[in-house]
Amino acid sequence: MRLPEGVEWGLHCLAVLAFVPPPACLPARRLAEYHEIPEPYLAKSLQALARAGLVASVPGPRGGFRLALPPAAITVLDAVQALDGTSPAFHCSEIRQRGPAAGPRDLYRLPCAIHHVMQEAEHAWRERLAETSIGDLALHVMQSADPTITQKAATWLQEAIR
Amino acid sequence: MRLPEGVEWGLHCLAVLAFVPPPACLPARRLAEYHEIPEPYLAKSLQALARAGLVASVPGPRGGFRLALPPAAITVLDAVQALDGTSPAFHCSEIRQRGPAAGPRDLYRLPCAIHHVMQEAEHAWRERLAETSIGDLALHVMQSADPTITQKAATWLQEAIR
Repeated sequence: MRLPEGVEWGLHCLAVLAFVPPPACLPARRLAEYHEIPEPYLAKSLQALARAGLVASVPGPRGGFRLALPPAAITVLDAVQALDGTSPAFHCSEIRQRGPAAGPRDLYRLPCAIHHVMQEAEHAWRERLAETSIGDLALHVMQSADPTITQKAATWLQEAIR
Repeated sequence: MRLPEGVEWGLHCLAVLAFVPPPACLPARRLAEYHEIPEPYLAKSLQALARAGLVASVPGPRGGFRLALPPAAITVLDAVQALDGTSPAFHCSEIRQRGPAAGPRDLYRLPCAIHHVMQEAEHAWRERLAETSIGDLALHVMQSADPTITQKAATWLQEAIR
């Protein structure tokens, strides 16, 4: 079980965009430059975030991306689901309804016990991701960074935003 | 992010093996028959469970598989990690150490904030899976099954065990 690297990229982009004061925006090229990710690769993640309504794309030569909602209104779960979809990691194929002990379909009214525990674990995972907003994340990124890094990032951002 | 179907197969096999009284065992062929899974496919999952010390393989013509530990001593997490490995779903590539705001490596003493929240969510997932044992799971499988299914399963098992 592995999350695609687009999830990591998208979360880092959202944390940067949280520092862009509306109505300003940041070109995709600049987001790619900041993270040293080839722009065409990053475009897929940015499009997924835009489709989910988490970032807005501002068209035109002075366009780019900005958060579509306040940083506190976007959760890490929203972002992860935008980037990796909402399908559960565990897929129950109702194995219990196969084989020599199987019976007619209407005998399986209660959920499969194995499916149930796997669903509960994924629920706990989602719940934890829903507890943290992109606003929280951006703050934690700042708090955990060395001041020299924070200053370099702020200087870069000031020059890059439109 | 998707767990391979071998995880589902392995968990169902463990739940069945919980009903096999030691020192009896169940041939791989029978486990495959019970779940309608091609035996060569299932063999991979059974081997992974054996490598992790969760099931024991009894050699010989009257051999097969049995749990290597009491059902209450094996957690669902043990089984999932045996079947899918212990690698985290989110891989942090330390993106923050790249690009125009990056600094020398020793400035990154605190963990990446994005890595941290993703790790916490996976911890919640693992914790939930560690709360349920294969013994609990086998009981829940019984409790949630219609009595006609339970009876068919018990009859089949009685005939299949060695």
